[in-house]
Amino acid sequence: MATELRSIGVADLDALALGAAVLGTGGGGNPYIGKLRLRGLLEKGAEVRVVPLEQVESDWQVVSVGGIGAPVVGVEKIERGDECARAIRALERYSHRKVDALIASEIGGSNALEPMIAAAELGVPVVDGDGMGRAFPEVQMTTFSINGAATAPAALADEKGNEVVLSQVVNMYWLERLARAVTVEMGAAAGLALAPMTGGFVKRTAVRGTVSQALAIGRTILAARAARRRVVQALAEEHGAHHLFAGKITSVRRELLGGFAVGHVLLSGYDEHAGQEARVDIQNENLVLRVGQEVLAVVPDLIMLLDADHGEPITTEVLRYGQRVDVIGFPCDPALKTPQALNVVGPAAFGYPELTYVPLQEERGARAHHPS
Amino acid sequence: MATELRSIGVADLDALALGAAVLGTGGGGNPYIGKLRLRGLLEKGAEVRVVPLEQVESDWQVVSVGGIGAPVVGVEKIERGDECARAIRALERYSHRKVDALIASEIGGSNALEPMIAAAELGVPVVDGDGMGRAFPEVQMTTFSINGAATAPAALADEKGNEVVLSQVVNMYWLERLARAVTVEMGAAAGLALAPMTGGFVKRTAVRGTVSQALAIGRTILAARAARRRVVQALAEEHGAHHLFAGKITSVRRELLGGFAVGHVLLSGYDEHAGQEARVDIQNENLVLRVGQEVLAVVPDLIMLLDADHGEPITTEVLRYGQRVDVIGFPCDPALKTPQALNVVGPAAFGYPELTYVPLQEERGARAHHPS
Repeated sequence: MATELRSIGVADLDALALGAAVLGTGGGGNPYIGKLRLRGLLEKGAEVRVVPLEQVESDWQVVSVGGIGAPVVGVEKIERGDECARAIRALERYSHRKVDALIASEIGGSNALEPMIAAAELGVPVVDGDGMGRAFPEVQMTTFSINGAATAPAALADEKGNEVVLSQVVNMYWLERLARAVTVEMGAAAGLALAPMTGGFVKRTAVRGTVSQALAIGRTILAARAARRRVVQALAEEHGAHHLFAGKITSVRRELLGGFAVGHVLLSGYDEHAGQEARVDIQNENLVLRVGQEVLAVVPDLIMLLDADHGEPITTEVLRYGQRVDVIGFPCDPALKTPQALNVVGPAAFGYPELTYVPLQEERGARAHHPS
Repeated sequence: MATELRSIGVADLDALALGAAVLGTGGGGNPYIGKLRLRGLLEKGAEVRVVPLEQVESDWQVVSVGGIGAPVVGVEKIERGDECARAIRALERYSHRKVDALIASEIGGSNALEPMIAAAELGVPVVDGDGMGRAFPEVQMTTFSINGAATAPAALADEKGNEVVLSQVVNMYWLERLARAVTVEMGAAAGLALAPMTGGFVKRTAVRGTVSQALAIGRTILAARAARRRVVQALAEEHGAHHLFAGKITSVRRELLGGFAVGHVLLSGYDEHAGQEARVDIQNENLVLRVGQEVLAVVPDLIMLLDADHGEPITTEVLRYGQRVDVIGFPCDPALKTPQALNVVGPAAFGYPELTYVPLQEERGARAHHPS
């Protein structure tokens, strides 16, 4: 963490994918396939340069990219792998301007790796940052969008060879609607390149350093496993994670609704949580953690379920009865806590108008993890 | 009809809309709103020049345009009116080339007028012809498409200000799927501009003279009404229409399925058809006419229901119990009768694999209209 991240190499991939999966808060798609694809590109000599946010030039054209679709499909569908690169090329053809750098729309899950794959193919760097600092289910839920990024032109590409440019879009909600409709028709997974932004805008609005953060979280987990330390404890000590619950999954309810995986998981506590029941609500990502009647953590703060034995992050599509999990929380980036941002990514935006957002504390251990 | 059509004036609009509605074979959208809009443009001094197919230059860029959506929505939705023009401008922006002329994708219904409205706005002529010689429900059902027109770039625009360019599309069925998905999301009605074609290609593949034909059919109906002649008789004498059935509507079944109006209408015969029952199957357009067990006419031939009193064409969305109607048929253009075309617009393409296409005869009266 001390030295600045300059490029991504093959040796970084396991940690990067692991950290991205943690920041995916249950969603964002499983990074496994993307990791294999990126490894293949790197082994063939492709480069993934990483540019710190401070070094982004103000007049650059920066495009945020990622996969769009339901995570359940993202895992099962074999992709060509060049969807994001082709979406970017479609944008370039439309706007007659080359892209100078890519940035992840969301650092969480497979979308941490998609910009790197596209960057390796296009020969441009990726910015060390993203538009969420986590994963969210909808395209307007980025700090770019919240701060007034242009809605068009955006472009989608699928693995069959179709490409669609959303050339004029009246607002971000229409961008989400049109992009989602095209994605569902494309088979529920596509690469999405959003409207080019200036480097200056990206510097003002991106969540900073999240590529480095994902890598660091992943390295902490790998190091803890190697040292046979408990992963949640290492994450708490080194990254300020809150250990919110430990329990066994007693029920998983999950449906695919309009391209989203929606549902909840019930947990029965053990160890210090014995006798307590917890519930995690899901809409692609983990949204709300309740222990008993108390809401312990709520979107936009990050809620992750880690396998209790190895600290492996459990994405919502592989949740299953009987798993023993640790539920941890991270405070979200301050950029997501403004009233303007909470309108878009707060509890009400996800259908919980009755929940007030009470932030997880930044200070390590400042929030009791024994709710009783 | 003897003099060549050079432009469309306000005095032509009633006849043109009426003839287009007849060629709409129950679908294609009601031309009423389009007629009002075109009248407004013409009264403000806009011009709609008409170019005979022979005079189209081989190196022109010609774009086929029309509205896409379910006719039920087309009637009810108030449109901005510039959807087709904006779809064409989006295409021009994407392909960096100005369009030289427009041609109707389908002459049937409102889509006869949409290219004229766009032409008046863009200052380019319309070609006297179209891609169907009637109306069909799907975008790949044109002579352009059947003869190998490019699938992309195509563009859609809605009344809210959204524009979508389908910049790469693997084939015509994907064009239809993606265009339809975007249209449904846009509110089930949009302007669609298809991939630019060369003038040479259009000359080889368009159905010739159908703007003139629509105008002539409309004039025949208006003249018959003025002379208190029976409209079906005038259409038979002057345009070779087959009078296939006369009956009263006893049942209308119609559902909106995936953006299409699907259903059927039952008729109980009178006069020379007394004691007979007829059924017309619908998928946006009238597809099959059965009298008793016999199939009297089938897609791609044209089947129209006219109000028995005034010869007003009845589009599928205004069919209702108790109407007295004449069912007439026109042979389709020979370009739709090739094996290649029948694969796309024959009975099997509409879900009737059991029906063989038996053409209505070109010769007036060559087909008995007394099936018994």
